[in-house]
Amino acid sequence: MTRLLHHRLDPASRLVRLMFAEYGVTAELEDIKPWAREARLLDINPAGTVPVLFEDGEPPIVGTLAVLHAVEDAYAPTSVPGLIPASPRDKAEMWRLLEWVLIKLNDEVTRYVLEEKIVKRDQRGATPEPGVLRVAKANLGEHLLYFNWLFASREWMAGDDMTLADFALAAHLSSLDYLGDVAWDSSPETRQWYARIKSRPAFRTLLNDRISGMMPSKGYADLDF
Amino acid sequence: MTRLLHHRLDPASRLVRLMFAEYGVTAELEDIKPWAREARLLDINPAGTVPVLFEDGEPPIVGTLAVLHAVEDAYAPTSVPGLIPASPRDKAEMWRLLEWVLIKLNDEVTRYVLEEKIVKRDQRGATPEPGVLRVAKANLGEHLLYFNWLFASREWMAGDDMTLADFALAAHLSSLDYLGDVAWDSSPETRQWYARIKSRPAFRTLLNDRISGMMPSKGYADLDF
Repeated sequence: MTRLLHHRLDPASRLVRLMFAEYGVTAELEDIKPWAREARLLDINPAGTVPVLFEDGEPPIVGTLAVLHAVEDAYAPTSVPGLIPASPRDKAEMWRLLEWVLIKLNDEVTRYVLEEKIVKRDQRGATPEPGVLRVAKANLGEHLLYFNWLFASREWMAGDDMTLADFALAAHLSSLDYLGDVAWDSSPETRQWYARIKSRPAFRTLLNDRISGMMPSKGYADLDF
Repeated sequence: MTRLLHHRLDPASRLVRLMFAEYGVTAELEDIKPWAREARLLDINPAGTVPVLFEDGEPPIVGTLAVLHAVEDAYAPTSVPGLIPASPRDKAEMWRLLEWVLIKLNDEVTRYVLEEKIVKRDQRGATPEPGVLRVAKANLGEHLLYFNWLFASREWMAGDDMTLADFALAAHLSSLDYLGDVAWDSSPETRQWYARIKSRPAFRTLLNDRISGMMPSKGYADLDF
C-alpha cells in the first residue's frame, strides 16, 4: 500500500497529494506535525521535513524532489502527457516556475505564515507576530502581481498545458487560502486560474481538509469563491 | 556557443560548472553580481537569481532545477552512468541529499555567509555581522556532523557512485572554503571525500576562481589541504 507521511497544510505534501489524485494513485495518508520532531519522522528523515513516501518493500522516499520524481516515474501515464512536459523548452519553463514556488514563494511568504499561524499556536499557544504577517502579506502581493502577469497571457503556469508548476502554486495558495491570506479580489487573473484548477476532481481531497481548532476561511472550499 | 550567466562563488552556478566539466561541455562564463539587480538579469529572470543558461537559438534556461535538468538531458553520456542514478532507490537518495544541500544547507549556512562576507561588502562596504556568522558557523558544524556520519559508511554522498548530490555539496563547501569557513580538522570523513572530489579534473575550474579584492583561504586550491 502506498503511504504518505504529511501535514495537511504543508504545501509540498499537498503538491504530492495533487499528483496522486491526478494519476489515480490510492494512498494512505498519515498526519504528522513535523515541528514536533517525533522520532518516527527524524529516524527516517533527519531533516525533519515532510513529505515522506512509503512503497511496499522499499526504503522510505524522503523530501519533495525525491518524492515528486518517484511519483512521476512510477505513476505518470505513458499514453497521455504527464505533469512534466516532454519538450525541452516547456520543461525548462516548468522547472523555473516550480523552483520559484518551492523556494522563492515559500521563502518569502508561505513559511512565515505557517510558522506564525500554525506552528507557534500549536507549540506554545502563542499568537502570530503582526509585523511578520504584514511583511509576508506584502511579499505575497508582489508574487501575485507576477502570477497575474503570467496568467494574463497563458492558460497554465508554464504554457498551454497544466504541469507540476501549477500543482505547486495551487498547493501553496490553497494553504494560504485556508488561513484567509489570499487577496483574490485584487488578483483576477490568478483567481481565474485558481478557479479552474480548484474545480478539477484532483483538488477535492484538499478542499475537505480541516485542521483541528482552526476552520478554513469562508471561500476555501467553494468552487465559486 | 553554450553560455552561463553566473557568479563565481554562487554555489548553484558552481554545481552547473562542475556538470559542464564532468560532461566535457565547453561553455563561456559571464560574471554577474545578482544582488546588483541589473536589467540584463532581471529582464530574463525576474527572480534575480543565477545560474542562467544560454544555448544557441533557444530561450534562456533559468534557475537551478531547470539548468541542471537541461544539462543532464542534453549532455549526460548514454554509454556510462550520468550524475543522476538510474535505479529508483539511488535516485531517491540522490534527490533527498541534493535537496538537503540546495535548500537546508543553503538556508541555514551558505546564504548567510555569502550575504555577510560578499554582498554587504560589495553593496555598501559594510563589514559582516559577527552574530550572524557565529550562527551560520554553528549550523555548518551540525551539517558537517551529518555529512561525516554519511561518509563514514559511503564513498559518495548517495552511495557507491558519484552523483549530482556530491557536486551540490562540493559546490557549497568550496564557496564556504574560499571564505575560510570550513573547519576541516574536525571533519575528517567529509575532508577525505572533499579531497577526492577536489582532485578530479572537473574541479580545476573552481580552484582557479578569484574574487576581486578577496583572496581565497590558504588551503582553498591545494589538493593536499
